[in-house]
Amino acid sequence: MTTTAAPSLLATLPGHFYTDQELFERERRHIFEAQWYCAVRAADLDRPGAYRTVRVGGESVLVTRNRRGELRAFLNVCRHRGAQLCTEESGAVRRGLQCPYHAWTYDLDGRLTAAPNLTRMPDVDRSRYGLHRVQLREWLGYGWVCLAPEPPPFEDTVVRDVAERLGGPEVVDRYAVAGLALGRRIGYDVRANWKLIIENFMECYHCATIHPELTEVLPEFADGFAAQYYVGHGPEFAEEAEGFTVDGSAGFARLPGVPDSHDRRYFALTVRPQVFVNLLPDHVIVHRMFPLAPDRTLVECDWLYAAEVVAAGPDQGRLAKSVELFHRVNEQDFAACERTQPAMSSRAYRQGGVLVPSEHHIAGFHDWVRALVAEE
Amino acid sequence: MTTTAAPSLLATLPGHFYTDQELFERERRHIFEAQWYCAVRAADLDRPGAYRTVRVGGESVLVTRNRRGELRAFLNVCRHRGAQLCTEESGAVRRGLQCPYHAWTYDLDGRLTAAPNLTRMPDVDRSRYGLHRVQLREWLGYGWVCLAPEPPPFEDTVVRDVAERLGGPEVVDRYAVAGLALGRRIGYDVRANWKLIIENFMECYHCATIHPELTEVLPEFADGFAAQYYVGHGPEFAEEAEGFTVDGSAGFARLPGVPDSHDRRYFALTVRPQVFVNLLPDHVIVHRMFPLAPDRTLVECDWLYAAEVVAAGPDQGRLAKSVELFHRVNEQDFAACERTQPAMSSRAYRQGGVLVPSEHHIAGFHDWVRALVAEE
Amino acid sequence: MTTTAAPSLLATLPGHFYTDQELFERERRHIFEAQWYCAVRAADLDRPGAYRTVRVGGESVLVTRNRRGELRAFLNVCRHRGAQLCTEESGAVRRGLQCPYHAWTYDLDGRLTAAPNLTRMPDVDRSRYGLHRVQLREWLGYGWVCLAPEPPPFEDTVVRDVAERLGGPEVVDRYAVAGLALGRRIGYDVRANWKLIIENFMECYHCATIHPELTEVLPEFADGFAAQYYVGHGPEFAEEAEGFTVDGSAGFARLPGVPDSHDRRYFALTVRPQVFVNLLPDHVIVHRMFPLAPDRTLVECDWLYAAEVVAAGPDQGRLAKSVELFHRVNEQDFAACERTQPAMSSRAYRQGGVLVPSEHHIAGFHDWVRALVAEE
Repeated sequence: MTTTAAPSLLATLPGHFYTDQELFERERRHIFEAQWYCAVRAADLDRPGAYRTVRVGGESVLVTRNRRGELRAFLNVCRHRGAQLCTEESGAVRRGLQCPYHAWTYDLDGRLTAAPNLTRMPDVDRSRYGLHRVQLREWLGYGWVCLAPEPPPFEDTVVRDVAERLGGPEVVDRYAVAGLALGRRIGYDVRANWKLIIENFMECYHCATIHPELTEVLPEFADGFAAQYYVGHGPEFAEEAEGFTVDGSAGFARLPGVPDSHDRRYFALTVRPQVFVNLLPDHVIVHRMFPLAPDRTLVECDWLYAAEVVAAGPDQGRLAKSVELFHRVNEQDFAACERTQPAMSSRAYRQGGVLVPSEHHIAGFHDWVRALVAEE
Repeated sequence: MTTTAAPSLLATLPGHFYTDQELFERERRHIFEAQWYCAVRAADLDRPGAYRTVRVGGESVLVTRNRRGELRAFLNVCRHRGAQLCTEESGAVRRGLQCPYHAWTYDLDGRLTAAPNLTRMPDVDRSRYGLHRVQLREWLGYGWVCLAPEPPPFEDTVVRDVAERLGGPEVVDRYAVAGLALGRRIGYDVRANWKLIIENFMECYHCATIHPELTEVLPEFADGFAAQYYVGHGPEFAEEAEGFTVDGSAGFARLPGVPDSHDRRYFALTVRPQVFVNLLPDHVIVHRMFPLAPDRTLVECDWLYAAEVVAAGPDQGRLAKSVELFHRVNEQDFAACERTQPAMSSRAYRQGGVLVPSEHHIAGFHDWVRALVAEE
Repeated sequence: MTTTAAPSLLATLPGHFYTDQELFERERRHIFEAQWYCAVRAADLDRPGAYRTVRVGGESVLVTRNRRGELRAFLNVCRHRGAQLCTEESGAVRRGLQCPYHAWTYDLDGRLTAAPNLTRMPDVDRSRYGLHRVQLREWLGYGWVCLAPEPPPFEDTVVRDVAERLGGPEVVDRYAVAGLALGRRIGYDVRANWKLIIENFMECYHCATIHPELTEVLPEFADGFAAQYYVGHGPEFAEEAEGFTVDGSAGFARLPGVPDSHDRRYFALTVRPQVFVNLLPDHVIVHRMFPLAPDRTLVECDWLYAAEVVAAGPDQGRLAKSVELFHRVNEQDFAACERTQPAMSSRAYRQGGVLVPSEHHIAGFHDWVRALVAEE
């Protein structure tokens, strides 16, 4: 008879989960192209014909606003010979979407409306050649798309991730995120696997070591216990901090809906597969990740404020100090992830590393990834 | 009993034909390295010892002119330890080809003539170590090479492609291409699969959309029917066009052999796998493609004129306007191909796109590719 | 009955041995990560806490000096979540090795000594989480590491390569290499397979063609017979050469231990898999190779002199002329290897090239490679 002591440290994913191209392709198919994926900020498409092109898994997705003011998403591929309809990251068309190769033309709902000589091709059933439609849901002011023909229920995935973290589905509504204005957007090109970025965001065991400014404002973080470990909990600002800013100076007025229980507190949320939401009393920070390769991820980070704050002008000192705090946190985190990526291919990481107790909730994320990529 | 309506639009090749590395390797083996491949302009090698190195499929081929004035082609690899004999794109040797690593020396017919200490190696049969010879045919002023040990008949492939398009094998002779002089050469580095470039060249359904200057001179092209669709047909210049130039101004005197039936007309020819010939009354344009990767193709384009036109000086305004027309067409076409390449990996193109009736002849090219790459 | 004439020229390895990524991975596993690998010059780590990071096969290895003055080597990977402990090529730590991500801390023998909250994790057996140790031997003033759990006997591999070439194990000791000082170090980024570099070093059939300065000082090399062909032999300096310098001018005083029999002679040694040692009466040159890809190898070359020579100042003219001779040889050799690499993928080299009689000993190296990579 053998007895084994219960291991006190859980194992992470093995290293090849962070380096293997074939596994990354499976993540594309079963995660990025199969789950709800936060693609665009809705307000960036401010009128009919405005569009954005975004990479979702291996696909270029074209998101636009139709005549009725609704967001629509399509594969960015002409049905005729495959030219990309739009190659710019963003822009606007006046009437419909016209392919610049052979002038096939689609309306803003993706219907093929015209093509040269089409009237001379009597057998062509125009309705068969509309753009490939992509499912889209608007929530928290963003357009979430799903490339799967039968998307998972939005409420059981995206909304549940938010609700479980906050202790209820209604809390986030108090911040009225969709009505906020964009104060600043910064893009980061991170040479690390997207899962390293998520794992980093989920734990605060590293905070004392790499985030001096953040732990100054949130002293609880210096203890290494991640806010995300406790349902409904958000660490409180230090007594001496007037606001969530790089030097603890005052931020802005509390957003109207934020209750007293959430004032002077920070709530971090991970929405799988690729979104972080950071709730502060006076602003909200939203990270969207765009994984490009096993070892490369673009991160687009939006700082959202009350409309009047942004209207006051973007280079006012107070906004800069508000943005600067999490911008530094981002740079510190992404540097740590980049330093971790090379070891993922080492024999030392063949079985993975370990999670200390305050990181054990990350194992839930690992289980979620494992289950999804096993699906074939 | 089921009945199916005849589909009015043919399918193109599926997307992976334009992206797959393994399929590209098969194209190298069964097309570029197995068919006759237009490698060099013969007149560029103007004397014995002049050479060019060109990429044919995966190989570096060395073309040179021997003492008797004949073109010779070899694999550009020393038989001893494999150093490349010539690393420059072009140049000239005085006597033979000497490997710069260990000084093995070959004459201009590829025979091993000397090597250090060779006389002290009595058992070495020098005749076994000549350069690997590559088949070469001269036609239309170009050296066409074939890496296959048993090349397909030149007349049944290259010559037939020309003859079938023009309605007979003798028409092209009237242009006496081999005697023309090089007015201009422009290289294009195109981020697209070589087959997209061929398909683009074979149809004119795109002309009205992307070629304003060309359709100005050739109004028939605005209708979208490719000249290549009709055997022996070449669209006529617009009444108001004096010549085939970017602004319709006068070109040069008609080439001596061109008959009245071909004056003021443009004939486009596709010679598989990688050549386009464009016949104009006063000049001839020859495109050679060099596929480097599934998504990258170099195109070298020669504008050929009567010797006296070129002798008059290269920067005369009239030559510039003559060259500029097709240079713009090239840039417009290659931009369209580059815009199409990304969608080849999309799920929207997994089964390919469609060919409208005026593009249906492209299916013949697709069948030819399919048949050749299936050969293993 | 058939008779076959014995072939007078041996075949080299086939071309794919120099291009195939999968074979390169096998070389990593069975050669670079399985044999003794010369990693660092010991004297470069001049005090406890000094470290170097070096690539050995696919791994980053951290070599440091402990409190007792001994060299220690570890996989450069934190046991917690895999961050690289040191990302610089060289540096020094004051106390231990602290991971900059979560502050796990190891002493200079690799033991885990501290981690945040460790005392709050009572079940953690700290001894299980020390750094992964790598075997290390010091010899000739260098630290040789082996990633295999059971390294091959150092004396039967590294030492034997040296002894067999010199005719005895004790000869190299006369040069007292470990006591020499570094006069100059030059790194070369060579776009060629590491085996091409070894083969080049092993033969001198190319010397007359590409090494004018070297054959001036060592006239015997102009005959094309490699020193390495004859056990214990080293070619003699030309009568008119005062020293082993780029212009034949005088070098430095003979190293104390070098016997008369080895004065004015050059001895070249290949120590598999990746070291060349060059013994001169007044200095020693050591090449270490770091293969990065099938077609890319970094070479680090050290010129070592008596301490008083280096102490006299690095830019004295005599040292420069001494270094310059082999620096030119290096550049000439590596250019030849780079010129050879492209042909390795040619059909002309599918069965390899040939070795002339004065290169036949290279076949022994080929056999050694073949045997090792076959091991799985």
